[in-house]
Amino acid sequence: MRERPQEFDRVLSSMCTEPHPAAREAAEEFLATNPGDPATYPTVADLEDEAVELLGDVAGLDDPAGYVASGGTEANVQAVRIARERADTAAPNVVVPESAHFSFQKAADLLGVELRIAPLTEDRRADVEAMRASADQDTAMVLGVAGSTEFGRVDPIPELAGVADSVGATFHVDAAWGGFLLPFTDRSWNFEHAPVDTMTIDPHKVGQAAIPAGGLLARDPALLDELAVDTPYLESKSQATLTGTRSGAGVASAVAALRALWPDGYRTNYERAMADAEWLAGELRERGFDIVEPSLPLVAADVDGRVFEALREDGWRVSRTGDGQLRVVHMPHVTRATLESFLADLDRRRVPATAD
Amino acid sequence: MRERPQEFDRVLSSMCTEPHPAAREAAEEFLATNPGDPATYPTVADLEDEAVELLGDVAGLDDPAGYVASGGTEANVQAVRIARERADTAAPNVVVPESAHFSFQKAADLLGVELRIAPLTEDRRADVEAMRASADQDTAMVLGVAGSTEFGRVDPIPELAGVADSVGATFHVDAAWGGFLLPFTDRSWNFEHAPVDTMTIDPHKVGQAAIPAGGLLARDPALLDELAVDTPYLESKSQATLTGTRSGAGVASAVAALRALWPDGYRTNYERAMADAEWLAGELRERGFDIVEPSLPLVAADVDGRVFEALREDGWRVSRTGDGQLRVVHMPHVTRATLESFLADLDRRRVPATAD
Repeated sequence: MRERPQEFDRVLSSMCTEPHPAAREAAEEFLATNPGDPATYPTVADLEDEAVELLGDVAGLDDPAGYVASGGTEANVQAVRIARERADTAAPNVVVPESAHFSFQKAADLLGVELRIAPLTEDRRADVEAMRASADQDTAMVLGVAGSTEFGRVDPIPELAGVADSVGATFHVDAAWGGFLLPFTDRSWNFEHAPVDTMTIDPHKVGQAAIPAGGLLARDPALLDELAVDTPYLESKSQATLTGTRSGAGVASAVAALRALWPDGYRTNYERAMADAEWLAGELRERGFDIVEPSLPLVAADVDGRVFEALREDGWRVSRTGDGQLRVVHMPHVTRATLESFLADLDRRRVPATAD
Repeated sequence: MRERPQEFDRVLSSMCTEPHPAAREAAEEFLATNPGDPATYPTVADLEDEAVELLGDVAGLDDPAGYVASGGTEANVQAVRIARERADTAAPNVVVPESAHFSFQKAADLLGVELRIAPLTEDRRADVEAMRASADQDTAMVLGVAGSTEFGRVDPIPELAGVADSVGATFHVDAAWGGFLLPFTDRSWNFEHAPVDTMTIDPHKVGQAAIPAGGLLARDPALLDELAVDTPYLESKSQATLTGTRSGAGVASAVAALRALWPDGYRTNYERAMADAEWLAGELRERGFDIVEPSLPLVAADVDGRVFEALREDGWRVSRTGDGQLRVVHMPHVTRATLESFLADLDRRRVPATAD
């Protein structure tokens, strides 16, 4: 193949990253395996059991149920599906904060549930009272976001669990991105901190597994039974995953990354990323930009559209929030040297604007 | 990682296979890319456009719309979703032959559509009159299977297109497995042969791409618009895929395999596989087994349960149809030497049964 993939040295806004070397090696070795057919591919099926156990360690859940999904979107869709199946109503709704990932819109479209979007507090977290006001007896699921996609914000998880409990709804936490950062903070976010039913926590983001390796965890294996369909031509009896054939590369690389990095490697990554985010926020603030202060290693800055386009012309892979802020996601591949180079380009590109 | 994946030398019932060497190389090179974010990963997004063009060549469709999905299940779910969105009814149903893959059960569960399962003819193909009798004004989609999972049967596609047309339904063809075999037969199965709206055709099966590389094709790009949701924090504006982050390895490997093998390499594979299937069917028939005659390279044989279990103990990765027949799927990794070795074990394992 003559084409070459992008380098990661200028990728600043992605939640994907370079896999850990052990994860890459495992992905390459298990490229031609299918955990969707455990009778034919038993080794990778055993690895998936280990991946779920290790994810349980990260998320504070002994004896977890779950599986390695194609990504966070599948895990979120499946969580909504579980909740819909459990809800005793003909018109189910799910209550989410405005910071919910767009996969919940996909889930609502697919599953025919009403999406009720509650406004945020000023610090861009779920507003517990607004969430409570949106929930009613037809509420199948309440969502808490533990590390929002746009701003890295962590919702008040125990309080939202209380909202779910008050209407008898399933409580889901989306920690797709935050799940490998939050264990090294003092936040309440996981299965030990609140009666969380299901969680999305993706090895292929901060976990440094290879794509595709999303994670769905459930406190009780009976929750996954809501998803099961019969599999007539496989020696296994039923399948709870959304997809059929699945990537063994994702599964094996998740195990390899977790073995290599949990917990010390992930802690080191978190501490470095958080220090870089605080440093970057300070540098941008000194330059006069409006900053959304990082609570996890993600910095959003109000950079004007012309400068943003100029930086993209310089080869920076940056994207914007819905409100137009430039987002820097401090993934493992983003180094301080990269950030210094980015700031130098930003300074150079701002000059014409200042001269206007 | 100390674990090693299974070898393929005894995998006889899987629709997965070893990727073509060029596909493996491309998968490894593009492991850390995400076609779900084309503004950040433009090279792999361009490769996806090429993959869709090449799949259009295979399926007889100029200027195809579509994308590389996580697998055939996603492609089938999305086809049902397109049909549901287009249907002008509050109680949509989809009419499928009994040979439909279980992904249509998943689709029906997810999407809240009624699944109407029509019986087959004696040769295990869709019965056009039974399909017609199941269809009505609430029918959103009619399915034709071009290479069924259990028996490799090809439905009468033009006639089923007529059934769909008669009730104003979308017509979908599931050629997930058969799509890379049927171009070398005289069957009517593709977009040129009938007014097919959407098709599932998977590079990661007979196409010899790496997992995950399913294919969804649509005659008209407007069909994909039915799937689009907004993507607030990406520079691209909307997303029609079921998943969010997606595997660039699947996309790049699909292009590499198609460049290497379409059409001559796939023709050679088909001819060898079909000759092997006919040879195996003959050998089994001579031994007195009831055989489902292969119409594509897939042989099902009525092997008794005790012998089946013994063969699994011998390390053969075999599985059974819903009716209990042992299935041999002649994928590219299945050689004549493997089949001879399998027959030798079968002969050895049958002896105690004969002695009873």
